[in-house]
Amino acid sequence: MVVSERPPVDPPQPATRSRAATRARLLAAASEVFAEVGLGEASVERICDRAGFTRGAFYSNFASKDEMFLELAGEVARERVAGVRVRVADLTAADRFDPQATDASVIIRALDVVGDDRHSTLLMHEISIKAMRDAEFAVAYRAQEEEILAEVVQLMDDIVEMKGLALRADSRAAAVIILAVWTDAATRAAVSGLDAAAATEMRTRRLSGVVELLLERPNAAQSRA
Amino acid sequence: MVVSERPPVDPPQPATRSRAATRARLLAAASEVFAEVGLGEASVERICDRAGFTRGAFYSNFASKDEMFLELAGEVARERVAGVRVRVADLTAADRFDPQATDASVIIRALDVVGDDRHSTLLMHEISIKAMRDAEFAVAYRAQEEEILAEVVQLMDDIVEMKGLALRADSRAAAVIILAVWTDAATRAAVSGLDAAAATEMRTRRLSGVVELLLERPNAAQSRA
Repeated sequence: MVVSERPPVDPPQPATRSRAATRARLLAAASEVFAEVGLGEASVERICDRAGFTRGAFYSNFASKDEMFLELAGEVARERVAGVRVRVADLTAADRFDPQATDASVIIRALDVVGDDRHSTLLMHEISIKAMRDAEFAVAYRAQEEEILAEVVQLMDDIVEMKGLALRADSRAAAVIILAVWTDAATRAAVSGLDAAAATEMRTRRLSGVVELLLERPNAAQSRA
Repeated sequence: MVVSERPPVDPPQPATRSRAATRARLLAAASEVFAEVGLGEASVERICDRAGFTRGAFYSNFASKDEMFLELAGEVARERVAGVRVRVADLTAADRFDPQATDASVIIRALDVVGDDRHSTLLMHEISIKAMRDAEFAVAYRAQEEEILAEVVQLMDDIVEMKGLALRADSRAAAVIILAVWTDAATRAAVSGLDAAAATEMRTRRLSGVVELLLERPNAAQSRA
């Protein structure tokens, strides 16, 4: 999930900490502006207005709007990776206490940590479209996407082993399909203006459908207690 | 596929036909500019420069850049729908002469008419991101997406009936998954800078994988001649 709240104004403190707070506040403001109007129309001035800083503060932290966007994209990706990683660990532990959980629900809960609200979805589209236009940016983007994919592959492997399941595709192909369906569901929810509850319902239904297709023996877990 | 070639300059002709040619040339130029720099940075001036027209010609045809973008998106969608529709008819006829064709290959050939080159992929992303930001635009966009989905559903139903297959999901859910995987493959190809042949290879491999998951009895067609 993208951090979109502005941190409170810090009390006086060492220069490095204040600098870090300024960067964080600029990045949070930029995340909102990029999502709202797109990378093309997001000016440095607009980002500074939103953050409540001068252009001087911007340029003492970032060389350009593009450099800032790259850092923001990296932050979003690291948060997504870390979020899925923590959930994989949590769920594989928690699930031992909830043998009734269906296989699909375990996978969906693990992915649910990753923001798919309208703001995050817009930002992810801005990031991927930038990656299509900028070869250098694309290299960083692909490395991050690969990391997220690796986490989802790990998740599939863990759940399959834990619940004694078999997949009808290798876990990497399965993860690619799951991420594609999930991105598509988030996009459709944003385009349809669905509220959070309706978006979650749609995503859950779509992901359940695809997880069932991927499993050799869906719901086999119910018989284990 | 998006028409990106400029029509030749027409000889003198009736005003209405000349007007249509001007519109078409402006739309073709806009399609390129929107894909290259995005809706946000595509100025009317830039589009006119590309088309070789004055701003006067632009504004006698379109009220605004947004109105033009909506028309362009409609054109792209109509072309996609018409393309898939023609292919469905062609393939269901042609396949009777090619009983060796695998089920996956029949479906993939039908979808292949829809442009997934870098230019079209960028334009589709610009269109869907605009739909996330603009509720009015979203209504038109969703109607168009629904039409494309309906064509793919028809395609699935036709192939399933023709080849005596069974799907493991209803044909609408299957079509949603296929379109999601296909969009994802086109995006990854564009981000990776793959050439047309490599992009086709990746898309074919991914779509084959998902079609096999969706079919109850893959390759059952081989036994019918």
